[in-house]
This record gives sequence, C-alpha cells and structure tokens, in this order.
Amino acid sequence: MTAPLRAGLVGLGMMGRNHARVLRTLPGVQLVGVVDPDAGPESSPLDADLLLPDLESLLRRGVDMCVVATPTVTHEAIATRLAEAGVPTLIEKPLAGDPAAAERIAAAFEQRQVLGCVGHIERYNPALQSLRTRLAHGELGEVYQVATRRQGPFPSRIADIGVVGDLATHDIDLTAWVTGSFYRSVSASTATRSGRSHEDLVSAVGVLGIDVVTSHLVNWLSPLKERITTVTGERGCFVADTLMADLTYYENGVTTAPWSAVATFRGVSEGSVIRYAIRKPEPLMTELEAFAAAVRGEDPHVVTLREGLETVRVADAMLRSARTGATVEVKP
Amino acid sequence: MTAPLRAGLVGLGMMGRNHARVLRTLPGVQLVGVVDPDAGPESSPLDADLLLPDLESLLRRGVDMCVVATPTVTHEAIATRLAEAGVPTLIEKPLAGDPAAAERIAAAFEQRQVLGCVGHIERYNPALQSLRTRLAHGELGEVYQVATRRQGPFPSRIADIGVVGDLATHDIDLTAWVTGSFYRSVSASTATRSGRSHEDLVSAVGVLGIDVVTSHLVNWLSPLKERITTVTGERGCFVADTLMADLTYYENGVTTAPWSAVATFRGVSEGSVIRYAIRKPEPLMTELEAFAAAVRGEDPHVVTLREGLETVRVADAMLRSARTGATVEVKP
Amino acid sequence: MTAPLRAGLVGLGMMGRNHARVLRTLPGVQLVGVVDPDAGPESSPLDADLLLPDLESLLRRGVDMCVVATPTVTHEAIATRLAEAGVPTLIEKPLAGDPAAAERIAAAFEQRQVLGCVGHIERYNPALQSLRTRLAHGELGEVYQVATRRQGPFPSRIADIGVVGDLATHDIDLTAWVTGSFYRSVSASTATRSGRSHEDLVSAVGVLGIDVVTSHLVNWLSPLKERITTVTGERGCFVADTLMADLTYYENGVTTAPWSAVATFRGVSEGSVIRYAIRKPEPLMTELEAFAAAVRGEDPHVVTLREGLETVRVADAMLRSARTGATVEVKP
Amino acid sequence: MTAPLRAGLVGLGMMGRNHARVLRTLPGVQLVGVVDPDAGPESSPLDADLLLPDLESLLRRGVDMCVVATPTVTHEAIATRLAEAGVPTLIEKPLAGDPAAAERIAAAFEQRQVLGCVGHIERYNPALQSLRTRLAHGELGEVYQVATRRQGPFPSRIADIGVVGDLATHDIDLTAWVTGSFYRSVSASTATRSGRSHEDLVSAVGVLGIDVVTSHLVNWLSPLKERITTVTGERGCFVADTLMADLTYYENGVTTAPWSAVATFRGVSEGSVIRYAIRKPEPLMTELEAFAAAVRGEDPHVVTLREGLETVRVADAMLRSARTGATVEVKP
Repeated sequence: MTAPLRAGLVGLGMMGRNHARVLRTLPGVQLVGVVDPDAGPESSPLDADLLLPDLESLLRRGVDMCVVATPTVTHEAIATRLAEAGVPTLIEKPLAGDPAAAERIAAAFEQRQVLGCVGHIERYNPALQSLRTRLAHGELGEVYQVATRRQGPFPSRIADIGVVGDLATHDIDLTAWVTGSFYRSVSASTATRSGRSHEDLVSAVGVLGIDVVTSHLVNWLSPLKERITTVTGERGCFVADTLMADLTYYENGVTTAPWSAVATFRGVSEGSVIRYAIRKPEPLMTELEAFAAAVRGEDPHVVTLREGLETVRVADAMLRSARTGATVEVKP
Repeated sequence: MTAPLRAGLVGLGMMGRNHARVLRTLPGVQLVGVVDPDAGPESSPLDADLLLPDLESLLRRGVDMCVVATPTVTHEAIATRLAEAGVPTLIEKPLAGDPAAAERIAAAFEQRQVLGCVGHIERYNPALQSLRTRLAHGELGEVYQVATRRQGPFPSRIADIGVVGDLATHDIDLTAWVTGSFYRSVSASTATRSGRSHEDLVSAVGVLGIDVVTSHLVNWLSPLKERITTVTGERGCFVADTLMADLTYYENGVTTAPWSAVATFRGVSEGSVIRYAIRKPEPLMTELEAFAAAVRGEDPHVVTLREGLETVRVADAMLRSARTGATVEVKP
Repeated sequence: MTAPLRAGLVGLGMMGRNHARVLRTLPGVQLVGVVDPDAGPESSPLDADLLLPDLESLLRRGVDMCVVATPTVTHEAIATRLAEAGVPTLIEKPLAGDPAAAERIAAAFEQRQVLGCVGHIERYNPALQSLRTRLAHGELGEVYQVATRRQGPFPSRIADIGVVGDLATHDIDLTAWVTGSFYRSVSASTATRSGRSHEDLVSAVGVLGIDVVTSHLVNWLSPLKERITTVTGERGCFVADTLMADLTYYENGVTTAPWSAVATFRGVSEGSVIRYAIRKPEPLMTELEAFAAAVRGEDPHVVTLREGLETVRVADAMLRSARTGATVEVKP
Repeated sequence: MTAPLRAGLVGLGMMGRNHARVLRTLPGVQLVGVVDPDAGPESSPLDADLLLPDLESLLRRGVDMCVVATPTVTHEAIATRLAEAGVPTLIEKPLAGDPAAAERIAAAFEQRQVLGCVGHIERYNPALQSLRTRLAHGELGEVYQVATRRQGPFPSRIADIGVVGDLATHDIDLTAWVTGSFYRSVSASTATRSGRSHEDLVSAVGVLGIDVVTSHLVNWLSPLKERITTVTGERGCFVADTLMADLTYYENGVTTAPWSAVATFRGVSEGSVIRYAIRKPEPLMTELEAFAAAVRGEDPHVVTLREGLETVRVADAMLRSARTGATVEVKP
C-alpha cells in the first residue's frame, strides 16, 4: 500500500469546513494542515495542530495536494503561489471574479505543468451525472432547451461577489457540461435589491453552439428554495433536482386523454414519468476522490481550469449584458 | 326585466365551442347565431338553426354583441366588418398577428366609438385576479421579478401562428397587468423544432417600466404541462398556478433551521407558506359576463384593444429579438 | 346497422345528470326517457319530452336497458319492478342499504334471468384497471397489504345513508376486485360528528381470504380531498390516484444512498418510481359502454348483483363492528 | 458557572452514535464514557479513551446521567442496574419488549426515586410540538380522528423486535400525547413477510378515551418512506410530516368552486392551506437538552417511564389483537 496523499486546505468558512470533513474521511488521503488566519482554535471543529496561520506554513509542512476555499477575490494570489510551489490544486468555484484573473490562474498552472482544477460541485451531483450520460446516449433525441432555476434564501456567507458569480456559475458550467457545448451569446437582466453592493437576482437567456436555447433564473432573494435543471428535447424532458439528487424523465405523450377533467391539467396527451433509481454518494466526496485520483496520475473526471475560465467568461458576459441592456456574444 | 342581449359568435373551433357553451348559459344573454363555414350541422354540438354560413347572415339576424374566435389571421377582416356594423365585439387573443393589423383593428372600433375588447382569459383566472389585488395592496412590498412558465404538449388546433403569438401573449399581457406596468425591452431566443413553419419554443427576458425583471419560458413541445407565474419581491414570493387557479404565498424566512437535514432542502431559514382560499368561477364565464356588462354600459373590467395591441407589440419585439440576436426596445 | 338500444334513466340528481349526459353521447344507445318526479322541466338540462313523471310511464314508452340513480333506500322497489318488467338494469352503488334488501334485488333479477349489475364506477377508473392487470400478472410478487384513503369535503347530495354505505363501498369493492379475493373479517370505528343521523367517518382494518391486510380511511369531513389506493407487496408498492387516474409504481430499493441528507428523507435505499402512461377515458363512459355491451349479449366486464351484495355485506359488517366494538367475521 | 454534567452512553449502534454526536456538543454536558462491548476502537468515530467494555466500568468512572441505546431486550438489565446505582437515565424507545419488563423498569426507578425517562423522540419533533400546542389551544375545535402513516424501507439495524414495538410505538405515544388522551381499545392486523421472526407490517384502528378514532399504518416493507400524522377535526385538518418537520393546516372550505374542472380535484369547496413557519432544532438535541435539564432539577418536558409503559401496553394489545383476530381493550 502506498503512502496516503498529504492534503492541505486553505479557507475554513462554510465550504472549507465541508472540505475538511470530507478530506478527513477520504481513503488514501491525509489532511495535514488547514490555513485559516481568522479562526482561532476554539472556533474550529479541527484539532489545534492542524491549524496554520498562513499558506507558507502549509507549504513548509509539505503537501501533495491542496484545496482553496477562500473568498473569490483571494483565489488568484493563493492559487498562483500554489502553482509556483508545484502543488496540485483544486480551487473552489468560481475560479476568479473576472476573466483576466481566471486566465492568469490557468496560465500559472499550465506554465509549470501543475494540475489545477475547479470545484464545480454540481458536476458530481448524481442527478446531473445521470442526465449527462443519458443525453450523450441520445435518450432525448435532439436537445431543444436547457432551463435552470436556482433560487433560495440568502446565505450570509457570501460578501465579495454577486449572485451571477456565486450561483449562476453553477448553471453556466452544468449547462455547457451536460450538453457538451458552449455559450455563443447571452442576454441578462439583473437586480440589486437587498442593499448589498452586488446583484442578487439574474434572469438570462442564451444560445449554445449546438443551437440549444438556455434560460437561467437565479437569485438569493426567494424564500422558495429550488435547484432545478430541465432539458427539453425531441422525445420529452428531463428534470434534475440537485437538492434530492433526483432525475425524472417525462416521456412525450403516447396516449390520448379523452377524460376532459384530466386533460385540463395534464394536456392533450400523457406519457409515462419515471424517476430513476440513482446511486447517490455525497457530491463533495466524489469531487475530492476525483481530485485525489488525478493527483495520483489516474484519469478521472476533473473540471479543468480552462473550463472554469470559460464559465467565468460567460458570467462576465451576463453582467455586461445586464449593464448595457444589449445581447452579448461570448467570444471564444 | 330587460330583454336579453342577442349574442353572435364567429368561429367554432375549440375556443369557439367553449364560447358557445358559456354564451348559452349566461344570464341576460341569448346566443342567436354562430358563423362557421367549415362545420356542417352534424359535426356541431349546436342546434342546426343557430348555424350560419357567413358573417353577413349573422348581421342580418341582428346581434347586440359578438365574439370572434377564428384563426388569428382572419381577425382583422372580421373585426373591422363588425366595427363598421356597430357591433360591440370581443376578439380572441392575440388581437392580431402583427402590430399593424392590431392597430387597424383598434382604429376601426375607436373611429366608430364601438366597444371592442380582447379575450385575454388569464385576466379572469381567480389566481391572477387575487395576485393582482394583493400586489396592488403592497402585500409583497417592492416587486423584483415576474417569471412565468407555460409549457405543455402541442394542441394541434393551432396552425397559423407560432407559440409567441399563441401562448406567450398570455404571459406578456398578464405580466403587464398584474404589475400595472409595461415592457421597456425584451430579449428572446426561439426554436422551431416540430416541423411546423412557426416557432414552438421561446425563452425571453425583459425589463418592465418599473424596473422589474421578467422571465418567460413558453413552449408547446414539453410533455410536462405547467401554467406558473412567480412574482418575487421584498417580502417573499407569490406562485400562481392558473390550471388549478391556486395562489400560494411563500413568506420570507422568519425562523432559523439549525437542523441541517432540513436546511439542505429548505434553505437557511423558512417562512410560512399559504395557499389562499379563492372563489373559483370558470374564467370564460367571468370574461363573458364582463363583456356583456360592458355592452350594457356598466363599467366592468374588459381588456381594451389598446392593451391587446400593446401585447402584440411586445410579442413582435420578442420575435425580432430572436431573429436578430439583439435586445429589442419596445417603443411606446 | 342495428337499431340503437332504447335506454331509460331513473333519478336526476348529481349522478343521474352525469348518466344522462353520457347516455346521450353513447354510440348505439338512445336515451328515450328520464324519470324524475321532483324536477320540473325548467330545472332540467334535458328536453322536456324526455322527462317522465314515474317508472310506469317509462316502461310504457319501452326501454331495452335502464339505469337507476335514485337514493339508496328506493333501489329495491325500483329495481324489483324493472326486473319484473324484464328490463336489463344498472343500479347505482351501493346496491342497497342492507344485505337483506340487496339479496332480494339480486334474487329478483336471477329468478327472471334478467341482467342486473351495479354501478361501482371505480372499477372503470383507468388507474385501478391498470393496477388490477399488473397485480394479476404478478408484477408486485406476493401482495401484503391494500390501504385506501377516501376523504374530502361533504357533498350535500347524500342524505339517506352514511359514509360507510356511500363512500366506503367504493373501497370495499375495489379492494376485493383488484386482489381477486374477499373479506374474511373487518374491525371498524366510526364517528358521527356533523350533526347528520348517519356516520360520517370510518377507520377500518380487515383481512382478505388471501391473507392480505387491508386498511381503509374514509370520511366526508376533511377539507383535504384524496382518492388513494396503495398496494404493498414483495417487490414494492403501487399507488393509484383515481382523481387524476394515475398509477405510480415505487420499486423496492436497488441502490444505497450514502448521502445522509437524502437518506433521511428517502430511506436506506431507493428504487425507481414510474407513473405509467395510461389511456384515460371517462370512467362513466366505460361503465355504460360495458353495460350496453352486456345488454347486447356481448361479454364485457360488469359488476354482478352478487358482487354488489357482497360489498353491502362487508359494509354492514363494518357498521356492526363499530357498534359492538368487536371484530366481525364476514360469513360467506 | 457550574461543572458540566458527566454523561454516559450505553450502546453504539445507529441511535447510539447519534446520541454520542449530540452529547459531545450539548452545552453543560460532558460525555465521559461509552459502553459498547462489540465495537473496537478502530470502528468507532470516538476517541479511544471514551470507550469502555462494560457498564460497571462506566459506573466506576462516575456519571451524572446516562443514555441507554441498546437492543430492546437488554433494556431491563441495564436500566435496573443504573437505577440501583442512582443514575438518572434516558432509555431509548420502546421502554421494553413487553409490559411486565417495562413495569419492572419503572418500579426500579420509582422505588429509588431516581429520574428515568424514555426517548420517544417524536415528541421533540417541531411539527408535532406545534401540532400539540395548536390542538391544546382549540384551533381545530373538536378532534375527530388521528391517522398516522409510518412506512419505509427496512433498516437492517433492528433484529430483536418487530415493527409494532420498533416503529408503531412512535405512533402510539405521539397520538396519546398530542391529544392528551389514552387508548381504550385497539384492533390490529399484522403480517410477517420478510423472512424475519417478527411482524413487519401492522394496520390498526383504535379508540381513545376522548372518543377519537385512530388509524395507524406502519411497516418497514415499503419503498415509499412516509412519516405522516393527520388530525381531522371540527374546523379542518392538520398534517404533520416529521421528516421535514412540517405542519400544514387545511382549513374547512369557505368558498364554493363552481369551476367544475377544479372541483373534481379539490371537492365542493376549498379553504386556505397554510404550512407554518416553525423553528426547527434537531429533535435529538431538544430531547437531550430536556433530559439534562431534568437532571439539573429544572422542570422540562421528559417522557416518563409510566408513559413509556403505557405505550408498551398498547403495542402489546395490538399484537394480541393480531394474534387472536379480536378487538382488545387496553385496561388501565
């Protein structure tokens, strides 16, 4: 048996604590240090000897892999230092607050040929993984539209970016990923209503390279929490709920419904509806297993820095569209 | 007791038959003739002596009010003739297939000072009527966003227009009406996938005059039938389902939910949720009662031709946006 | 083409009007007379020449088949007269208010070898028809339990019997029918709370001949309307909703769910869930088609008078159990 | 500040681990020892120095309070020893496998005037706590019926008792508690289908002292997980879902619904429906806080041993009813 990978973690906010919990139980991985300048030992769920005051202390302790779960504006400085030190790194999403910073992070890892990847956790949600496989197998026939809704009460943990960077990047990344395509253009409207300095609501339409129409409704102002992705195509539609990790298929109607009371609510025809039995490991566990496997030179699925950059570029295009009131093309 | 109003009907398709059913039971109204050149007596649920071969026969029989429920492309010719004849008329939605035709219809009735109105039936849905009243009373505080979803299997009855004119005009009209505002701009993407000559899917974002963001997801390609309007604002959100005529209020969270299993699904806080008890008369009955009351010179709520024209203009802007790939301003 | 069957109807309450509506549209059937002593022509949706003051007038007019939709206490007198006259008859459920009367009705038709059947309409609900077929094909493996819930607001139309006779007879009949078994014993508690003279709530457990456990929760006191039948067996469970005519299959778990947040709500394992595409004609249409086919000597599915009697006997056993506080065996 | 209470735990199965997790975070409480003869240190989530081989070791270490979370058949021996040692004890539900053993446990604590209580955790579910308060305040008027459904896939952790003792005791206890009443009689049918030696399905009806009818549907054979309590009364019904800790009130109909399509599904009238905003701490946290408070001599809500005994007696009556096929009175 080989020695476990020595893992480091930077950041101990809500997501950081989740990373710490999972890293401590991951087979073949040993959490050796956590950087969190703000948290004293008494406020932490971790043993005191794991806590380190800064990144350099962590590097001196020696790590084979590192997770960065700090506020977005700090990603560039921390990630670049880790790239310089040759440490394979998983950076929480979004990769950066703007395309230029994301580009610099990607370049830093590429120049040194160090593994870098992005924590777009929805890719590890069992519902979306099943959805992507089924679309790739042509189960829906031609795809017409991807519509997502991501709404809910505001998590006070976020301060440095708006809802486009924080939440809509989930939707941008998953939409491109499940369809295997990319965004050609977007048009978005935003609102800043909660008194914070960043937008907290966005409604967007887009067009993918494969001529698929997209719709995204994202906010952290609603008391009604939803995490829904609907893909409509030639044979029916898939609805993925990433909260419960459910994937449900609504087949196009194959029967007629002459009973008018029913037809009022179900339409002129009904097909079968199936919620698939899906194996449901915790997505963060799957994400970190994949990262560790990539560090060991195996070939698992990780989200590349270029993919993370592309998502930041689409998010940036949404914000520009909202500012200018014009549709924005996403230049490749 | 006064004599009943003599009502005529032009068109005996699906909506026409519904109008006929309701006009025959409406107090104070007598259905005296139905024009349907295509339908022979054997295919009609009506008595043979009600059926007439053309509009002129109906006008000769004498009517106090008339409903036009024919294909959209025929509205202008029929409505203009009724205006000339001085007959108060309710025209099914959409008022016309393009703004110019809608403008000519409106002008025809205005010049002769004849009552004309449009059958935007969602305004008579009990859920939306309650929603509008509650918004007007400020129950939601400031309004941030109106998002509608109108999806379902294709009703083969429609041939002459696409889903923007047929279905999205419901959403455009109701959004402007419940908020008491108007569209400043729209950006839309459409798809034409079913082999018909018109679009059958549209995803649109818009901005209202009162700075409210809108989102509309409309198609007749989905096996999952939905008729949902969500209004999000300062104090929570309203969800109206016009199929079951339900209005539900999700209040902003007032409690914290430290039980983590629940918080995963409901969010960091939960408020109360209330589905209101609403009196639910059939919307078409309410619409035709309102039309008859307007004919009698009372002052009920009807949808004016100018309002119907405005909706056609927004629909036209959506189609232009989809063609050009640019955001379109809706000039007043 | 043969001459249409001449159909009569006795009773023009809520169910009677539904029978009249369907009998007028049924191919091969002509509604020739409706007996309703109470209703004057002005209150009826039917042409005046269809209305007759009494059963003898209907018999003189000549009928090939007759539907009896009068209050339960009047079934025996009317049905017996129709049997004497040799008229094939469908009697609304319950067949009678007590087993003795039901026995006399059955005997009257059997002695004269006249077709008699009972309007247990749930047997014609597409969801239950599909359920029965699937159980007969062994899709669930061994059946363990049948549980029904039939609750809702009180329909003021019922005055002469309680909720056991009026609503629970649906559940008794369908439970025996979908399982192909019979009741061995029942134990029930009832409550009479609404100020009427009959019970308006019943909770019952029973045992079928095939050792299946049953549970029935039936009332007309609840604002929450439900019509649910759940059959649990070796491979999972079926849930039939006869309002929307849906049949949904919950397969036993085939996956493990190590994501604890999900497992809290779904259990230690999850299987697939499928709502079947079912053709959904209106049940009353199917019921009357079957009756007409039986009258023509074809061999369709009708509910025999003996089956209707058996249901009345189980309902009577429930009422006796509730009165005595003891479990009651249902003697065959 | 006073010294923390020294807490012990006996049993480290699924519930035991939950108790350990909560006891370690409870303010004012220090977990000082856990007895689990089976688990070696490597299989435990706890520090090795907490683990003890037997109860005597725990007593020697010195504890102010103890939780017993071992298989039911072992409760009597362990609880009696703790009573002898004068240790305030919370015993997991059910208190014992039969009334005689439960009686002996209760007597052991009473003779020595030591605090004993039972872990009927549903009493600490926020939904049921809110329900009980609302019933006590008369919000439902007169109560007519309490119906519970507790179904789901089998948790392999249970081996020594059947579903009546394991799961139905939740329903028995909560029904008596929310209504403030007691069981007069029960009639039950059970089935033993999974190849285990104990029953795994029970359907029961009962009558409470206050003339309320009860219905319980409990099994661990169904893939459809439910934890539902419905209380129907004079003004409507309450539905509590203890999985999501939701309490929803269906008010009796106050409106008429002349739109027939809606009335088919909702009934002749509709009232408002409200899901209350409820503060939702984790029930096990609340339970152990209450136990600790009782140990400190404060006066919180704990489930007394006499209440736990009463629940075991009703469960025993259910099993006798199922064996004999007769209704069983529950002698006080």
